[in-house]
Parts: sequence; C-alpha cells; structure tokens
Amino acid sequence: MSLESILNNSNNYQPGLSIDCVIFGFHDNSLKVLLLKPKFSEKWTLPGGFVTVDDSIDVAAVNVLKERTGLTGIFLRQFATFGDINRDEIDFNTKVLEFFKIPKENAKWYLQRFVTIGYYALVDFFETIPSANGKYEIIEWIDLNNIPELILDHNKILNKALENLRLELNSLPIGFNLLPEKFTMTELQKLYETILGRELDRRNFFRKMNSIGILKKLDEKKSNVSHKAPNFYCFDTENYQKVLKDGLNMGW
Amino acid sequence: MSLESILNNSNNYQPGLSIDCVIFGFHDNSLKVLLLKPKFSEKWTLPGGFVTVDDSIDVAAVNVLKERTGLTGIFLRQFATFGDINRDEIDFNTKVLEFFKIPKENAKWYLQRFVTIGYYALVDFFETIPSANGKYEIIEWIDLNNIPELILDHNKILNKALENLRLELNSLPIGFNLLPEKFTMTELQKLYETILGRELDRRNFFRKMNSIGILKKLDEKKSNVSHKAPNFYCFDTENYQKVLKDGLNMGW
Repeated sequence: MSLESILNNSNNYQPGLSIDCVIFGFHDNSLKVLLLKPKFSEKWTLPGGFVTVDDSIDVAAVNVLKERTGLTGIFLRQFATFGDINRDEIDFNTKVLEFFKIPKENAKWYLQRFVTIGYYALVDFFETIPSANGKYEIIEWIDLNNIPELILDHNKILNKALENLRLELNSLPIGFNLLPEKFTMTELQKLYETILGRELDRRNFFRKMNSIGILKKLDEKKSNVSHKAPNFYCFDTENYQKVLKDGLNMGW
Repeated sequence: MSLESILNNSNNYQPGLSIDCVIFGFHDNSLKVLLLKPKFSEKWTLPGGFVTVDDSIDVAAVNVLKERTGLTGIFLRQFATFGDINRDEIDFNTKVLEFFKIPKENAKWYLQRFVTIGYYALVDFFETIPSANGKYEIIEWIDLNNIPELILDHNKILNKALENLRLELNSLPIGFNLLPEKFTMTELQKLYETILGRELDRRNFFRKMNSIGILKKLDEKKSNVSHKAPNFYCFDTENYQKVLKDGLNMGW
C-alpha cells in the first residue's frame, strides 16, 4: 500500500499506531536481519506498516512479513511496544512528505505521534523472496555484526528483538524455520551461538539438545568435508510442536 | 483523572491506546492480583488508564500503578500489547457512557477501537495502599486461584502476564519486591511455587538459589515455630541488582 493511498484512506487506519518487524534469517553460519533502504533517507529501516481498523495487530504484522518476504505461516512473535515521547516520528514523517512532495494538509493522520508494536520473525533464508516495493530502493539481508544506523528508534527495536530471541532460547525450541531440512549438530550449535553471541561448550550443547528429544539422527553423513564426516539430523516435527507448546522448562 | 475530564480534553490523549496493569502481590503464601470492581459492571477489571500525548507509555503505566497502589519506583514491566479486533471495547464503552449518562456526541474519542498495552508489576503487599477512586467501588487483592470473570479481554491479559512472569523466573531474580525484608528459604520457595503453579524439589531449589549468590543468611531464626526453627535470609542488594542487570543464565 503506497503512502498516498493510505493518506487518502486514513480513516481506515488506527491512528498513531504502526508495526515494525525484525526478520531474522540464518545463512553462512551467521544471523542476518532483513533491512530496507528508503528512497527518502540515508539511514536504513526495519520493514513496517500500519494497522487497518478492521485487522488485528497480529494480522497487520503477518501482512508486513508477507509483503517483504513472500512468506506466510512462519514463526512470528510480538515482543515489545515502543512509545517513548522522543521517537521523533513527527519530524521524520514531515521530511518523508517533503521528499515525496505530498502537502502536509493532506497528511494530518501521518503527522501525529506514533507508537509502534515490534514483532520478530524467524524465516528460511532460501525460501525468502525479499521485495523492496513502495518507498524503498533496496532490501537486503544484513549481518547482525554489521547493522548500519537505522531511522528513528529502529536500532533499539532490533536490539530488543534480539534480547527477546535470546530469552526464548531458554523456553522454546528455535531453528525449525531458520535451518534447512537436514543439518549437522555443529550447524545447530552455530545457530545458538550466533543468537546468544557467545561460544557454547560442544559436549554440553549436544547433551542438552539431545535430552529435549526434538532431533532425529539421519542415516546420512555430510559428504563434502575432508576428515570425519558429521551426521545429518532433522527435527522430529511432532515432538518439536509439542515442546513448542509446552515449553522447554530449562529453569526451575 | 475522571472519564468526563478525559473526554473534555481528549486531544491531550493518544487515540485508541490504553494501558492495563496486572499488579501482583504475595501474601499468606499465595500470589494475589489487585483488581477493581467498577460501578458500571458486574465483572471486575484490571487497573488501567490512558496515555497523554506528551507522556511515554512507560510513564503512563507508572501513573496507573501510583494511582492504585500509592507506590513508585517498583518493578514494572511491559509484557504484551493486545489488539484483536474482537476486544469489543466500543460496545463496552458505549455501556459505560450510558451508565454515567454522558452523551455519545461528546465522546467520539472514547468510542473508537482501542489497543491496550499490558504491564505487570511486583509489589510489596504490606506497602500497598489500594485506592478505588473514580469509576470504581471496590479494589481488592484477589487470589490467583480465585480470579472472577473480568471485562473485555482482561482474563487473557492476566494469564499472559502470569505466563511472562514464569518465563522471567528463568532469566531474572524475582522476590525483592514481593517478599518482606527477612524471609525463610521455605517462604522464598513458596513464592516460586505459587508463580510456577507447581511444586519444586526442596533440595534442588536450595542448591540453585544459593548458587545464584543473591542471598545473605542472617544470624537470626524464625521464632514462632514449634520444631526446628528455620534461618532467616535477606537479599544481597548489590548482587541482586547485578544479576537483575546481567541475567541468571540458567539455560544454554
């Protein structure tokens, strides 16, 4: 939906409310985030959107994700809402209007304070078809260690998403959407390490992961490695869904 | 702030946005929630409020808490935002206006779709001074096992708060605001059990809790018990704050 058509139908949108999505993918043993480069700014931005008056906020988030990745039915989780008074969205949106030569008189809805709801998604890197339509010129997977300066409070939103993803690791299985169908234990460990931002002890990780009971060892080894070939694993879908529902219970 | 004065100054409030607070206290070995009985409804409600255009959402939540408990500077955490389209707030608010005989023409701001941000707080039962001013006739600590039917989606909000508090137990120390200054290990264990909703093994709990390093054993025993008197403990404030900042790291 273009900004013009939203402004022409602003009665159809919740006032002062937006959605921002932190979309994580895993590739080349590192965690990446899908970011957009707008035409109107040197800084990059998280994919986002608005909430129509007859859509639930979760549906609005699903729509943002679908627009930018082509994907549906993936792991998407609301993690926090951002509503500091110094988000500076009015200043920022004023500049956007100037860039697109849209008269301010037609954009009262856009020139108010916005509170934004953050969602994060875990998607399959290879299944994603990034799309930079509308106000954007580039969409790109950017390595977590190489995040540029983002507009508004988007760096804060991204960091908070990562913090929440780390917490989730202790209560939920993660990886189903991030890894290919077959993977080695080392690849799985690398995923956890890249999310946690620290190295894990190999033996401990193997032991804990096996005790959860969501992995199936396959009768197949990774072939393109020189020395001892590691085994492939896949997720036991049924058990994975069960643990996703019941929680890992790693704490008390 | 009364509903009338909010409606007379509705330009000062974010449109379609409210705050709801789940306030937990611990007393008589059980977890309780502070709930209000409105004049206009048979169902009870969570304490809530609105967001003025020049306050951060966190400040709005602090204000709700202060109004209902008299407390400031306590553990308060945003946990989720609720924005399903079937929250039924327009129907509900229409009935509130009818009850207070406020003409609908003066209440356009109130008769729109509201999205609500949930916060939960952990407070000291004995320091709280519950206050039921405004549209409410009763405010009461209600046992978690005895929660009545609440208005709108407030039961869902309460359950989600509890779910988040349970998750937090695995990453943060909890108890500083919920327990008296001196407490026994059994009382601390009881707090964890009542939050988790299940019994914990005594030895395991003692071992894990001691390994965190946030407790100080006092040279004092609980006196009004018949058999072997248990030791009193208090929190080591400095270490507690450190773990609160760094996290418990009980998982991977």
